Amino acid sequence: MSTSLHNIDQQIAEIGQRAKAASREMAKASTRQKNHALGALAELIKGQRSALQSANQADVERARAAGCDAAFIDRLTLSDQAIDSMTEGVQQVAALFDPIGEIDAMRPQPSGISVGKMRVPLGVIGIIYESRPNVTIDAATLCIKAGNATILRGGSEAIESNRLLAGLIQQALSAAALPAQAVQLIPTTDRQAVSAMITLPQYIDVIVPRGGKSLIERIAKESRVPVIKHLDGICHVYLDDDADIEKAVRIADNAKTQRYGTCNTMETLLISQAIAHQVLPPLVKIYLDKGVELRVCDQTRKTLSALGLTHPLIKDATAEDWDAEYLAPILAVKSVADIDEAMTHIDLHGSRHTDAIVTENHSKAMRFLREVDSASVLINASTRFADGFEFGLGAEIGISNDKIHARGPVGLEGLTTYKWVVLGSGQIRT
Amino acid sequence: MSTSLHNIDQQIAEIGQRAKAASREMAKASTRQKNHALGALAELIKGQRSALQSANQADVERARAAGCDAAFIDRLTLSDQAIDSMTEGVQQVAALFDPIGEIDAMRPQPSGISVGKMRVPLGVIGIIYESRPNVTIDAATLCIKAGNATILRGGSEAIESNRLLAGLIQQALSAAALPAQAVQLIPTTDRQAVSAMITLPQYIDVIVPRGGKSLIERIAKESRVPVIKHLDGICHVYLDDDADIEKAVRIADNAKTQRYGTCNTMETLLISQAIAHQVLPPLVKIYLDKGVELRVCDQTRKTLSALGLTHPLIKDATAEDWDAEYLAPILAVKSVADIDEAMTHIDLHGSRHTDAIVTENHSKAMRFLREVDSASVLINASTRFADGFEFGLGAEIGISNDKIHARGPVGLEGLTTYKWVVLGSGQIRT
Repeated sequence: MSTSLHNIDQQIAEIGQRAKAASREMAKASTRQKNHALGALAELIKGQRSALQSANQADVERARAAGCDAAFIDRLTLSDQAIDSMTEGVQQVAALFDPIGEIDAMRPQPSGISVGKMRVPLGVIGIIYESRPNVTIDAATLCIKAGNATILRGGSEAIESNRLLAGLIQQALSAAALPAQAVQLIPTTDRQAVSAMITLPQYIDVIVPRGGKSLIERIAKESRVPVIKHLDGICHVYLDDDADIEKAVRIADNAKTQRYGTCNTMETLLISQAIAHQVLPPLVKIYLDKGVELRVCDQTRKTLSALGLTHPLIKDATAEDWDAEYLAPILAVKSVADIDEAMTHIDLHGSRHTDAIVTENHSKAMRFLREVDSASVLINASTRFADGFEFGLGAEIGISNDKIHARGPVGLEGLTTYKWVVLGSGQIRT
Repeated sequence: MSTSLHNIDQQIAEIGQRAKAASREMAKASTRQKNHALGALAELIKGQRSALQSANQADVERARAAGCDAAFIDRLTLSDQAIDSMTEGVQQVAALFDPIGEIDAMRPQPSGISVGKMRVPLGVIGIIYESRPNVTIDAATLCIKAGNATILRGGSEAIESNRLLAGLIQQALSAAALPAQAVQLIPTTDRQAVSAMITLPQYIDVIVPRGGKSLIERIAKESRVPVIKHLDGICHVYLDDDADIEKAVRIADNAKTQRYGTCNTMETLLISQAIAHQVLPPLVKIYLDKGVELRVCDQTRKTLSALGLTHPLIKDATAEDWDAEYLAPILAVKSVADIDEAMTHIDLHGSRHTDAIVTENHSKAMRFLREVDSASVLINASTRFADGFEFGLGAEIGISNDKIHARGPVGLEGLTTYKWVVLGSGQIRT
């Protein structure tokens, strides 16, 4: 190992050690103290708006000079609106119920002891993210509220903005008599820092990667620390033959077109053959009006031809389309015989993220709910609802496609664990 | 890779594939069906007692010929009593509440959708264990009840017993119209089978290793599949200066001497210096009468000398003793100034498994409960209570020292996960 790699590993290990020490203090912090820090942070962000924007301006200019595209620059920029919404986010987290210390139920046992589970912080959370500087604030505030210490590893493009924001967070922690080291930003932009973070299970309890698929894939593959992540959102809506046609059209429209680039956007529409002739004409019109390209199966093509519907944006699907996450105005459309074929398709091609059925038939709705093995399963609602805010979590650190620990939208509770607590009065085991 | 390794990898992958397919059927199984299978299994074990004991006899003879020690032979032997307790275990699991399909609370959200969490099976559980053939039944029945498929990898010494038991389980599954492939025993005793299992995250959702520390360490290090495990049980009892002396003596006795070889046995006793002269005379007498060797710190040695207590079994502790898991009649004893020194010692030397305080002071009891970062924290009760049955879980698949997913004693719930379920009536996101 070169001296430089060794130095970075050493530096990250020291950051990890400080985080672990700070996490012990954070675990003891009162709700009042944590909310005090969050309130102070909201005020600091408001007060430092111009300093923040000039640091951000430096990042944006560097990104422009490096030839980054408009979408990238947009994500990087801390506009007035972006700063306002960051501040509001902090206040929302301050207003959330504090889960730490809650004991679910103390149940007396035959031995005479009472046993319950107390919710406690996970410890140290590592956040690895890319260009959006607002993640620095969003992630750190959730981790603070859940009583954790945090190590932030932002993208090199946002380093000036992130440094300033991390400084404000540390000031706010100190103002509440909490350890400033409870939130640390990795100062180096060297990629080796990520490799070092994901191999420190002794200091970091969980890693949350946020960003592009290749970053997340690499982290999931190499991490020795548990990872909360999702890779793909290949989401389905199944329009059952017992669907209300009006609801079917509205939901299939919204699930695809409300936003194209999100992980809970529908990528494949499954239509029961029995209602295809009823739903296709209004739906195809909506999609074509919005410029959505359709990749259709043979049977759907036949139905469309019989209905006299052809258009350059209607193309024939290939086998790859059933496994595609377009994140774009493109939709795969497949005709199925019934709910069984729909569920088999979802099982084979879905990413276990979010899937919905539209039906008025109660038994089929309940079968879909029970049998589809996805993190979020919806009846008569748009897949776009699969989101921490819409699910009532109050905030979201990310979404998990995995089954272990946290699944689907992850809020405060996903940043906690529990311990067993026992109240005795001198009992011994016999 | 040699042909033989390749063949084993291929064989395990096929077992994994069949398990995954069976897990879909198991997830849909009704409580009645699962209980039917368990009832049938209990009857089959009773009915096949002599066949079982002759298969087991073959294992025992092989182990004897191989020179295995008496403790090993004891674990391997299916005595009448062992078979009775296996049958009772199956009936107990059948009687447990079925967690699958339970929805915690459907909460209406501002958008009009209602959102809840449904408890669902994890999918496929891999159990890797050593000589005890009863694990075949204990683990499989818990996995069946939780709606999972199971891949069992028992020790080569118990292979004849395990084959017969696995056959009975498959018969019982078929009798309940459940897929026999929902419980598969790995037929080969080749060690490569373990390596193959722990690198199949596409088919196996979680691995539960049960056995010696070196086996578990290896699996934890190399597994690409999440592991539910514990390595060490370095458990503490802290006798506070506000302890009831009688309770302190009773608990410190029981936590060490009720069983020496279990993971929740106390390994280090921490005594507040203020009460050392009161608790040491009765405790030392108990320990010495039971043949427990004491490894004492300097301060404890001074107190003992002042009390005129010396004995060949009382030895001076070395630095290693504070990190030792003896699993034997040996106890480290340390004097501490107060609860803070006790908690600092536990933080530095404990294994985050199980720790207890004995005190009548409410504030100190609550501090210990909140601040000690262990899977089980007890007030005025023996560490020996940290156990699935004593905690009211009805059964136990293992104990976890980790913080992710399951912590402490793991029962049925640790073999499940949840999915988000949404009931809508046509809602779309705006």
